[in-house]
Amino acid sequence: MPRNLRHLLTVTALSLGLAGPVLADDLLDEANAVFKPLPSTIPAVRDNPITKEKIELGKALFFDPRMSASGVFSCNSCHNLATGGDDNLETSIGHGWQKGPRNAPTALNAVFNEAQFWDGRAEDLKAQAKGPVQAGVEMANTPDKVIATLKSMPQYVEWFDAAFPEQGDPVTFDNFAKAIEAYEATLLTPAPFDAYLNGNDAALGDQEKAGLATFIDKGCASCHSGINVGGNGYYPFGLIEKPGAEVLPEKDKGRFAVTATADDSYVFRAAPLRNIALTAPYFHSGKVWDLKQAVAIMGTSQLGEHLTDQEIDDIVAFLGSLTGEVPQVIYPVLPAETAGTPRPTEDVIPGK
Amino acid sequence: MPRNLRHLLTVTALSLGLAGPVLADDLLDEANAVFKPLPSTIPAVRDNPITKEKIELGKALFFDPRMSASGVFSCNSCHNLATGGDDNLETSIGHGWQKGPRNAPTALNAVFNEAQFWDGRAEDLKAQAKGPVQAGVEMANTPDKVIATLKSMPQYVEWFDAAFPEQGDPVTFDNFAKAIEAYEATLLTPAPFDAYLNGNDAALGDQEKAGLATFIDKGCASCHSGINVGGNGYYPFGLIEKPGAEVLPEKDKGRFAVTATADDSYVFRAAPLRNIALTAPYFHSGKVWDLKQAVAIMGTSQLGEHLTDQEIDDIVAFLGSLTGEVPQVIYPVLPAETAGTPRPTEDVIPGK
Repeated sequence: MPRNLRHLLTVTALSLGLAGPVLADDLLDEANAVFKPLPSTIPAVRDNPITKEKIELGKALFFDPRMSASGVFSCNSCHNLATGGDDNLETSIGHGWQKGPRNAPTALNAVFNEAQFWDGRAEDLKAQAKGPVQAGVEMANTPDKVIATLKSMPQYVEWFDAAFPEQGDPVTFDNFAKAIEAYEATLLTPAPFDAYLNGNDAALGDQEKAGLATFIDKGCASCHSGINVGGNGYYPFGLIEKPGAEVLPEKDKGRFAVTATADDSYVFRAAPLRNIALTAPYFHSGKVWDLKQAVAIMGTSQLGEHLTDQEIDDIVAFLGSLTGEVPQVIYPVLPAETAGTPRPTEDVIPGK
Repeated sequence: MPRNLRHLLTVTALSLGLAGPVLADDLLDEANAVFKPLPSTIPAVRDNPITKEKIELGKALFFDPRMSASGVFSCNSCHNLATGGDDNLETSIGHGWQKGPRNAPTALNAVFNEAQFWDGRAEDLKAQAKGPVQAGVEMANTPDKVIATLKSMPQYVEWFDAAFPEQGDPVTFDNFAKAIEAYEATLLTPAPFDAYLNGNDAALGDQEKAGLATFIDKGCASCHSGINVGGNGYYPFGLIEKPGAEVLPEKDKGRFAVTATADDSYVFRAAPLRNIALTAPYFHSGKVWDLKQAVAIMGTSQLGEHLTDQEIDDIVAFLGSLTGEVPQVIYPVLPAETAGTPRPTEDVIPGK
């Protein structure tokens, strides 16, 4: 049923005191046509069979600050599972107190993104995992030093052996990345919205449903759809009207850096919106702290719509229903360093 | 029985093939006269009744990076429960990439130290907990901003209410510190040495027992005694022979800064040795990475003894029996920030 017809019926039904299951089902049908609930099991990933051993190894690596040159930062530093899978900073602070160029995206449910990073330059999480560890402004490490660090601790070598059996020399940078991908694939956060998509009408309140309807009606769902309510497809930020340079800094041309195609200037992957209420500040620039303001900016820049306060409040209520339950994480006890473990260094190497 | 007599008996017994339970019991008796096993329950602390609610709140605070001005560092950053309760750095890296003046001590079992910090300047963990959060080179925050941050998140206010019932306004810096102390009081790591002290002779191997005997014989246990095998009493570093300035930097006069008493120059609290195998590098300067070297330095500087390689190996084996089991930590899910949460700042304020 077209939305305008549905609206008409809603108004009629309300005026007749007839609002109820039929219309609720209608919204649910529409939602299920656009979105998908999280699966109930860990998803398969390309070229990386997921095993219990790989997950456990990946968890240790994810939390191990010795994967950084300084010994200060782990994956979890910027993708903190205690705070929505990100660091709640404008852009992350890394090696030498340098600031990263873009806001750290959440690691939660990231396995369902079409590609990783704001510009999609990593095709999957195992490709992504190799980035920050080597970035000079983040963990500032090298694959060689990561491997030397891991090989210096017999417990890690055992864990790699268990995670990658039948490999002669399993402690490799590729396997490091695969183990982290396997762990991240477990970071699913089922939310009230999933319960709703799965047929539990009571999982969303009236305002959340109103927000969902508005989200679809206004066109937000054209880009923010699928299992991650985003995370798929690339769109110009400022499709209708460019936001100010504070929010969309001129120098960061987004996907243009990946494709060198003029059409990709200021193009970014649509942000995945699960747990968005936990992951302020917003946008790749991290300049907007208030989710209402972020929604309003999206309205004008992407849709040419000046959303009313009520519409914004409703949409924010709907977005709140995407806040899910983080899986219980037993904090790992990491292998002890040995005499052979490379020493941490806080030195900043220019150009690195 | 005096040790020299015991030695004579040991030699005699060994030559007669009589080594056994009696002599083993003798070492156990001596050990129990000098050391104490960890208790089986959470210890009581001064002026801070420990409750489940306080522990849970304290755990959240311990892991929350928003307690730092930058939003980067939590207590766990430098007292990482995944890596022996410390950060495995020479001295910690904090706000603005500044280096702290002394090696971060482990938070594990710290509740049993007579006082906190290398110079004992905090009488207990609740006094200690207020230090790093305000130190300009560490978390660089202020009590006011900590409280404003906590009060901005309704979930934290609820947790404080539950942890400190019958207080009108429980979100205070004192209660912040008390909750962290309550959590830290749970961080006990029972080790093979505890099993031995509790009467299980098989909990230590032969070399560990030889190391224990040497540790007592040579006088190490004169300072490193009690439940934490140290952590009590203050002693000059370089009692017999000052180590080089690399290990004992001239400018750091230790407890002199606390008492302003000449006798306290280069005096430090005896390091607690539980989990010492996990917490390299060593000494307040963090300059020594190898535990064998650290033991050798202690021999010459504190005892005037040039320990043999065998003696050092034995002592290191004994110290390994102090590595305990870290309690299982469920990584917390922290309250989400709100519009009222003070923003993180990476700026370094001179003199702060």
